Amino acid sequence: MLPPKIFVVVGNKAKTEPFNLNDLPGSAGRMDILCRCVAQTLFISHGIRRDSGIILILKGEPNPPKSILVLGSKVKYMSPDERNIGGLIRKALELKLRNLDWVESTPGIYVSKKGLKEIIEELKNYEKVYLKENGEDIRKVKFGERVAFFMGDHLGLSKEDEELICSKANKIVSVGPISLQADQCIVIVQNELDRRIR
Amino acid sequence: MLPPKIFVVVGNKAKTEPFNLNDLPGSAGRMDILCRCVAQTLFISHGIRRDSGIILILKGEPNPPKSILVLGSKVKYMSPDERNIGGLIRKALELKLRNLDWVESTPGIYVSKKGLKEIIEELKNYEKVYLKENGEDIRKVKFGERVAFFMGDHLGLSKEDEELICSKANKIVSVGPISLQADQCIVIVQNELDRRIR
Repeated sequence: MLPPKIFVVVGNKAKTEPFNLNDLPGSAGRMDILCRCVAQTLFISHGIRRDSGIILILKGEPNPPKSILVLGSKVKYMSPDERNIGGLIRKALELKLRNLDWVESTPGIYVSKKGLKEIIEELKNYEKVYLKENGEDIRKVKFGERVAFFMGDHLGLSKEDEELICSKANKIVSVGPISLQADQCIVIVQNELDRRIR
Repeated sequence: MLPPKIFVVVGNKAKTEPFNLNDLPGSAGRMDILCRCVAQTLFISHGIRRDSGIILILKGEPNPPKSILVLGSKVKYMSPDERNIGGLIRKALELKLRNLDWVESTPGIYVSKKGLKEIIEELKNYEKVYLKENGEDIRKVKFGERVAFFMGDHLGLSKEDEELICSKANKIVSVGPISLQADQCIVIVQNELDRRIR
């Protein structure tokens, strides 16, 4: 079900109930960052990356954790602007969740009560890459066929989350000499992988 | 006054009067794309690129052309989300313009009646690079100390605008094997230039 390229972004304060679309950076807990990460994972010029998906781990109030999965191969009715993507995430957060399973909200968008630990378990067949400033330069790193890239939002990762990822990560990789925003890291990873395939 | 790195993005349908912040992709004429271009030019993790600036050429109704200049070295009160940047552009479009001069709207944000031709003239001391799919791979290209990168929005560039740019462009450069959105191209250019400096 999951595509060969997955990005996992932890939203440390991202709301776990429907939020105000006019205040994505504020009361929604920097949901703007997560919306941009979705856009940069999936969109190219006039197209969607069908080989890519993204999992957002929402750790904000009132019901953490929740996770949102967006699959490029299935998603419909999405445009790359923050408000549109935010609206689709908001809709997913309206759903009542009974157990840890993924529930489809709109085409290609799923929500669950999984946290980082369960997501890592779900990605057990993936090469796991932690994107971090002091990692090895991405241009020098080889990747396998199925790879998941982990990163934090503007707050980075909590000590516990970082330990969890590092305990399973196959590689720690940096995208460049300057510390960038999560969505910018995704753009650079996608570009690097684009260059490997062709 | 202008910084060493400038991005010039043509917004073919971008509104030239104050627009609805709740409809950046629609009635504002894909202003969402231009907002993302501003963010990707200027923001890094917890900081602003003081060596960078962006000029947006707005060609939509009702008063084209107008241009918006944002300087990383001067800008204040800006956050990277589309709505915040859209609000600042909107504010700039409220100003009455008498001639072709830049008028400061909020700190580091300027508006003028200049079109692409005047902007190219203003950048006469810059190396001019046209970002296009069939250009030379950016990783193989050397750049001068002052460089301006030109690109279109989702509609690309009109024939006239492309001829204007090509008549002055020193180089045609591609960021990778897949056609990407304008803001994604900016991320990749910035990353490549970051790697040259360090």
